[in-house]
Amino acid sequence: MDDFNFSTDVQVRFAETDAQGIAHHAAFVVFLEVARVAWLDEYAGGYQSIRDRGIEALTTEVSLRYHRAARFHDRLTVWVRCAEIRGARFRYEYRIERAGELIADGHTGHATVDAATRRPIRVPDWFAAALATSV
Amino acid sequence: MDDFNFSTDVQVRFAETDAQGIAHHAAFVVFLEVARVAWLDEYAGGYQSIRDRGIEALTTEVSLRYHRAARFHDRLTVWVRCAEIRGARFRYEYRIERAGELIADGHTGHATVDAATRRPIRVPDWFAAALATSV
Amino acid sequence: MDDFNFSTDVQVRFAETDAQGIAHHAAFVVFLEVARVAWLDEYAGGYQSIRDRGIEALTTEVSLRYHRAARFHDRLTVWVRCAEIRGARFRYEYRIERAGELIADGHTGHATVDAATRRPIRVPDWFAAALATSV
Amino acid sequence: MDDFNFSTDVQVRFAETDAQGIAHHAAFVVFLEVARVAWLDEYAGGYQSIRDRGIEALTTEVSLRYHRAARFHDRLTVWVRCAEIRGARFRYEYRIERAGELIADGHTGHATVDAATRRPIRVPDWFAAALATSV
Repeated sequence: MDDFNFSTDVQVRFAETDAQGIAHHAAFVVFLEVARVAWLDEYAGGYQSIRDRGIEALTTEVSLRYHRAARFHDRLTVWVRCAEIRGARFRYEYRIERAGELIADGHTGHATVDAATRRPIRVPDWFAAALATSV
Repeated sequence: MDDFNFSTDVQVRFAETDAQGIAHHAAFVVFLEVARVAWLDEYAGGYQSIRDRGIEALTTEVSLRYHRAARFHDRLTVWVRCAEIRGARFRYEYRIERAGELIADGHTGHATVDAATRRPIRVPDWFAAALATSV
Repeated sequence: MDDFNFSTDVQVRFAETDAQGIAHHAAFVVFLEVARVAWLDEYAGGYQSIRDRGIEALTTEVSLRYHRAARFHDRLTVWVRCAEIRGARFRYEYRIERAGELIADGHTGHATVDAATRRPIRVPDWFAAALATSV
Repeated sequence: MDDFNFSTDVQVRFAETDAQGIAHHAAFVVFLEVARVAWLDEYAGGYQSIRDRGIEALTTEVSLRYHRAARFHDRLTVWVRCAEIRGARFRYEYRIERAGELIADGHTGHATVDAATRRPIRVPDWFAAALATSV
């Protein structure tokens, strides 16, 4: 994928299908999270290590466009990249493919907060540094 | 319903259906929880008030038998009763109906633990007393 | 709510919370669907009646901004309006509130397809007419 | 695992956790399904191939006992075996472990029905034969 260099695969579970016979659109929001968590494992020591340092990353925005339906048992490749970090906010972009065919794309926005006080805190330097290694 | 005197209604969401065109069986586990939470609102001051006192109620067992399929938009009545309290454990029983027809029945087992230490603690007296008011 | 005249309530289920102690962001996508289905009940004879006529409404876009966290047992009011119908496509807008406080807002895009062939078909006149009654 | 010779791994998703900070108990019902689907891939040509022959396998019973909590990102091994086939019914047994520690165990019951008529049909011979290869 142009401009993406990390992806993770998910396989559509039967529980994720709906009565239209396709993967329910809400399941894709979870697929984005699975990819984000895998990205954090790869580049930033894992989401749990972030939480262990007293930081929560809240989700402030989700946007998805669905281009093709996915079906039960389809293996989807979820490309993810961290596109921007600014102050207490950062943003990921995604592209979901099935055998090279575009199924969905989108982005999510996040904000780092102190886990105890829930107040916004700047994205830590080590996290910003981790980003630099991913591009 | 014989022997049940509390119920709550749920309506099957489209997201809860699957590619068989019916409510996915895992959704019923959530329906039981919705009924349990409504029961706690009615008889025990609400689940949050239990959590606020530093007690968590863990789920230790779920058992469900499915007799009829439920479909999108079906309105289901979930009957629930607290059937037994013993030491740190208690048990609920359920009967799910659609217009009087049996759709599913089952039970769940729970254990009270200290929220901080995660160690089992006896079901508090006030909770046992709440039970007494429900039968 | 300014410009909205239909809403439905949902109560955050325990199963919808996550380890941050708040309603998981994917649950809101389902809340939008619940509101859409209630809107269709009110204005268009229900989603099932649309499906019974051989039409499926696919979701082509979901966009949500999260302003405040919602917690277990919170009662949320989901305001919904059908904002636009054009050819085979239509769009809903949403505003989710808790006791008048803005929790999230967003929109979804949809396309009507023939349930058998999965080919796009114009939004039926009766559906467009139903819309007219809602504003 | 004694008497089990097939397993599949799942990793607890953040969306599957709840406000107790653990994997929600309903998520395990989906984990059993994931294991069943992987088992069908291995021994019976896949669940979709069964559906393609006009057969649906309904879930008639789910029973789970939870022994230890699972947490975000935990990698769980779901052991599964088809324990019994009788007429139109069959049964799976499961054992969920984390690094060899028992997390949950349980069983599910299923019935084969004609996808068009929804009437029970005997478990097909080729499916019973597939079972024989798995033990």
